[in-house]
Amino acid sequence: MDVGFDKETILTLSHLPPTMYSARAQKMRSSEIRELLKLTESEDILSFGGGMPDPTLFPMEEFVEIAEEVMRDVRALSYSPTDGIKSLRETVARLLAGKGIDVTYANVMITTGSQQALDLISKIYLDPGDVVVSESPTYLSAIGAFRSYEANTVGIEMDDDGMDTDKLRNYLEREGEKCKFIYTIPTYQNPSGITMSYARRRELLQIAKEYDKPIIEDDPYGELSYDGETIKPIKSMPNSDMVTYFGTASKILVPGLRAAWIVGSDEVLKKCSMAKQSTDLCSSALTQSIAKEFIDRGLLEAHLEKLRKVYKKKRDAILEAMESYFPPNVRWTHPNGGMFIWVTLPDGIDAKEILPKALEKGIAYVPGKSFYADGSGENTMRINFSFPTLEEIDEGMKRLGTLLKEVAG
Amino acid sequence: MDVGFDKETILTLSHLPPTMYSARAQKMRSSEIRELLKLTESEDILSFGGGMPDPTLFPMEEFVEIAEEVMRDVRALSYSPTDGIKSLRETVARLLAGKGIDVTYANVMITTGSQQALDLISKIYLDPGDVVVSESPTYLSAIGAFRSYEANTVGIEMDDDGMDTDKLRNYLEREGEKCKFIYTIPTYQNPSGITMSYARRRELLQIAKEYDKPIIEDDPYGELSYDGETIKPIKSMPNSDMVTYFGTASKILVPGLRAAWIVGSDEVLKKCSMAKQSTDLCSSALTQSIAKEFIDRGLLEAHLEKLRKVYKKKRDAILEAMESYFPPNVRWTHPNGGMFIWVTLPDGIDAKEILPKALEKGIAYVPGKSFYADGSGENTMRINFSFPTLEEIDEGMKRLGTLLKEVAG
Repeated sequence: MDVGFDKETILTLSHLPPTMYSARAQKMRSSEIRELLKLTESEDILSFGGGMPDPTLFPMEEFVEIAEEVMRDVRALSYSPTDGIKSLRETVARLLAGKGIDVTYANVMITTGSQQALDLISKIYLDPGDVVVSESPTYLSAIGAFRSYEANTVGIEMDDDGMDTDKLRNYLEREGEKCKFIYTIPTYQNPSGITMSYARRRELLQIAKEYDKPIIEDDPYGELSYDGETIKPIKSMPNSDMVTYFGTASKILVPGLRAAWIVGSDEVLKKCSMAKQSTDLCSSALTQSIAKEFIDRGLLEAHLEKLRKVYKKKRDAILEAMESYFPPNVRWTHPNGGMFIWVTLPDGIDAKEILPKALEKGIAYVPGKSFYADGSGENTMRINFSFPTLEEIDEGMKRLGTLLKEVAG
Repeated sequence: MDVGFDKETILTLSHLPPTMYSARAQKMRSSEIRELLKLTESEDILSFGGGMPDPTLFPMEEFVEIAEEVMRDVRALSYSPTDGIKSLRETVARLLAGKGIDVTYANVMITTGSQQALDLISKIYLDPGDVVVSESPTYLSAIGAFRSYEANTVGIEMDDDGMDTDKLRNYLEREGEKCKFIYTIPTYQNPSGITMSYARRRELLQIAKEYDKPIIEDDPYGELSYDGETIKPIKSMPNSDMVTYFGTASKILVPGLRAAWIVGSDEVLKKCSMAKQSTDLCSSALTQSIAKEFIDRGLLEAHLEKLRKVYKKKRDAILEAMESYFPPNVRWTHPNGGMFIWVTLPDGIDAKEILPKALEKGIAYVPGKSFYADGSGENTMRINFSFPTLEEIDEGMKRLGTLLKEVAG
């Protein structure tokens, strides 16, 4: 019997149109982290991979009660304004006031998750060949969003105070022309866990002004602070008109609502709104109504207190476990909040290469390379601590430590 | 006192970055229909504008019961697979089998409303300057989606049997090179209400094969048939591999779930899935779970029976009212299903120009021009009959008839 296509297959294939996808489609890549999540669906794997909140903390009973009420309003089941339902926009504006961001609902727009915020902002700013400047490493799906509009991400190194603003200035001075905006996750950054200092934030704003570059400030984790101190968003600083701010309910409430928000100038929001009309018309009024009602009933503050308490314990536990089990030539960050620890292995150890061995030992993480736009970072990995239980954290880090001692010890 | 900017305003403006939006953002236009919907939010206006289902038919009680159950599963509140939750994909595959479309869940992908299906398909196919061929007139937000990727829509005239396939063939023969795909709403088309005959569907498929052009078949209204006969989707015909099919829960269930689906080849779905990763990561697992559960409990069939019965009455009522109240030089379509009547005024009467007068009389419609990619169709309007009550239909058409007699009688 022949190997290869049989006649029927060839006939079927010949019926398909030739490849004539867009230039951007030919550059798209499937996100490594999403593929990985598929692997870890097996229950035997302790996953430190995704950026998942702890599902045992989901406020289900409150949601059930709220859903019962909001679903009896036809508006929750209808089409809704592209910018979001007005009541949630007002509620978000009130939340933001607590973070020092002084806006009305008119400068708040609701999106289908903050991934859509990334998509819309890319859609309105980026032409093929444009550049976005970000921290390096940075959120992998931000790189993906920029790439889907054929733009390149240029990463600026970080130290313990966040993005190195001297290096940013050098870059912009040298070849900033193609840069359309600066993308930053200043607080408890994904993937590094690093927080940008107040002085750096001020300097970043200054540089953005000097070089006339908008700042996109992505802040999914700002509320998840575990050591008391917090640094206010760049968007709360004086003269921050050029900052467009992203927030989301995914990490502070639940991801399944797909409720997030863009806060920006009239002009940016008008463009984003036009882009959203052709992108998904409107976000679900039902999930928006649930988010709005949860916050309006005053339930968010107590929920956040609970998250902070539980995640702080997990953060402490994972740092302690790393200290106990990891070999001395491995380094890691000590974040004051958020969901991630960033681990750096000795040079020459490839975190992606050893992932199959980790999966054999029943643990998963995300190789750090995915977070580098330039393909570097082979010897790094991102470890999530919000999702696993305390027991899983200890057991998982023990297993990872064993592996690291085998390959790097 | 000076007219114009004061000093403070100038200072604020000078802080904003210069305009440096993308080429596509500079071409975006706000949808006329969305702006119109804002106008008609006033309760005094009888709206025949939007494409809204009758909200009094929303199955609220069933939804409340279902929501209570599905919300207790953490998966409904979590991130979910980019392609959609597997159980809904399976459920949709079963629904499609009833329409003669034979696929498994693997060829079904869930989107955030079918507007997102339009966005994703545009994202994977369209480069600036590309052409999409469609019926003329066609769905205005499809034109908007194609435009947002800097592609042009070329409309092919229709007669009572749908798109004129001879004209389609002529166009493709003459200048089909730039055409990336053929977009069609063959059944109870938006905005015209026209249904493509079986013979034309076969011919369309034949032409698409000859010229190697994928067909995008958008079918939001196929289930809403009022006169017994139905024509099966193009996607159900033999050798229809090159057809990518869109369906949605918005018109047959409720729009607020934002649950829709793309049915296509492995290759097209893989590209759409990659595009969706960077667009919104995943659709809401909660709203997907509600849609899935509603269908799995066997509630959809009874719900559809109710919709067909009520909308048939409304369709009959609006045709009767038009017959009674419209002047003889106005023509309109007599659709066998769907939600819209297409009205053609005498040449020289501009439906957009007389809209303010209509609003004064307390009624709203969508001027037909928005549905023409080439800006023609001034003397046409789209009238929705699913949303207004029977009384509103009679009163509204009486008022519209009075206006039409004033301007065109």
